[in-house]
Amino acid sequence: MPRYALRIEYDGGPFSGWQRQRDVPSVQGALEAALARLQPGDAKVAAAGRTDAGVHGLGQVAQADLEKDWTPFRLMEALNYHLKPAPVAVTACARVAEDWHARFSAVERQYLYRIVVRRAPLVLEAGRAWQLGHGLDAGAMREGAAELLGHHDFTTFRSVICQAASPVKTLDRLDVEEVARADGCAELRFHVRARSFLHNQVRSIVGTLERVGAGAWTPGDVGLALAARDRAACGPVAPPQGLYLARVGYPADPFEAPGAALADGVRRE
Amino acid sequence: MPRYALRIEYDGGPFSGWQRQRDVPSVQGALEAALARLQPGDAKVAAAGRTDAGVHGLGQVAQADLEKDWTPFRLMEALNYHLKPAPVAVTACARVAEDWHARFSAVERQYLYRIVVRRAPLVLEAGRAWQLGHGLDAGAMREGAAELLGHHDFTTFRSVICQAASPVKTLDRLDVEEVARADGCAELRFHVRARSFLHNQVRSIVGTLERVGAGAWTPGDVGLALAARDRAACGPVAPPQGLYLARVGYPADPFEAPGAALADGVRRE
Repeated sequence: MPRYALRIEYDGGPFSGWQRQRDVPSVQGALEAALARLQPGDAKVAAAGRTDAGVHGLGQVAQADLEKDWTPFRLMEALNYHLKPAPVAVTACARVAEDWHARFSAVERQYLYRIVVRRAPLVLEAGRAWQLGHGLDAGAMREGAAELLGHHDFTTFRSVICQAASPVKTLDRLDVEEVARADGCAELRFHVRARSFLHNQVRSIVGTLERVGAGAWTPGDVGLALAARDRAACGPVAPPQGLYLARVGYPADPFEAPGAALADGVRRE
Repeated sequence: MPRYALRIEYDGGPFSGWQRQRDVPSVQGALEAALARLQPGDAKVAAAGRTDAGVHGLGQVAQADLEKDWTPFRLMEALNYHLKPAPVAVTACARVAEDWHARFSAVERQYLYRIVVRRAPLVLEAGRAWQLGHGLDAGAMREGAAELLGHHDFTTFRSVICQAASPVKTLDRLDVEEVARADGCAELRFHVRARSFLHNQVRSIVGTLERVGAGAWTPGDVGLALAARDRAACGPVAPPQGLYLARVGYPADPFEAPGAALADGVRRE
């Protein structure tokens, strides 16, 4: 059966997370229901990262095996048609080899986390960021972030239900970007990249760095928390609505290959 | 009675427009209902620009007369509390002179219009832009836009129900900005500024420039349409969900004055 790679965007708000569960809406469930409209039987999709309830997808990647050949453009259009009105869209589609796997072939994940410092409720960006009512010291947060870069035992920053075999991961990027906003408020964007992550790792890191930004922790406390290798040493876990799975990297990007269909309808030559 | 200037952000989607109407939700109605929770009687607000159904507010400005003195910060917080769950927020508040008027004291309005070229449905930005499935020639659109800059009779670009005394306006800015998007799609942002606008003027201009971008019109056709001074010569009117009232300018910005409260809770010194 021909295999396809799908790049997926979604609003995590109405979903119980990526993973299909009985009786609750999931992103995987929405995609599989759309696939079932294209071919009879039990269509299955698998994703690079199983995002939690409320976490958004910007560049999630999934795979699907189809029974017949589709051009990537027609498959993307048909899925988007049947996905409506669920807030899920296929933004790129490519034919891949049958041994390619959205999760196991991935060599890099990048997350974005948004914090907006504003007392007035977010209206046009409701549910799109973690809103805080107090200022943050971005410089101190960067100092704290530097303690976490590289190869470490991240037990402190790992959910107790995490199923990964090892708590040792390599954090390749943890940048804190300050963004100018039209409303004059401060926005911080965390860009976090690793080959793979532990469960709740990004939200645990951001929640801990928030404590540093608020002045409750020193940057050095982040290093001490890491060294403790103890979940109890972690700061609060940041809420899901600020988190976006931004990008999944593969040794060769399937959506850059000839024949891939992109969100604007362009087909790669 | 002390007068206050309010800077307002709103999602235009669920509203029939700024203006209060019987039996349909309006932004003005939502604000007046919140004011009525603060003081008995018929609270009235007046705005700098009466946006149409579906048009968003980023920097709309309104005025309200209160019966008693409020610090701008407390008034902003109380209104935001009572506005929930309507998608309307007060993002700045200032005490102003009693002869200051949100509409008549304004000397400049700036609008933003967003077009996204993408076939996959917008999910995280649903209802926030005009989505087109075909590419646009931004250079040609800029050439067309240049025909409209300056002092002209804009009869062609004016709704037939426009109540302005004269169709002559001065367009001070009409920039077409190309924005890089994470999904690889093209986004165009139109920045349009004038002392004041005719009804549907921005959407008529953007809809006409879209025809130029699509290659159906030449840039010179825009000048001919303007010179015709005939509503029938206009291109299609662009849909409301791409339009934002971005900023209202005053000889002295009330939200820059000492004592003004800003969205992040900061009080101007």
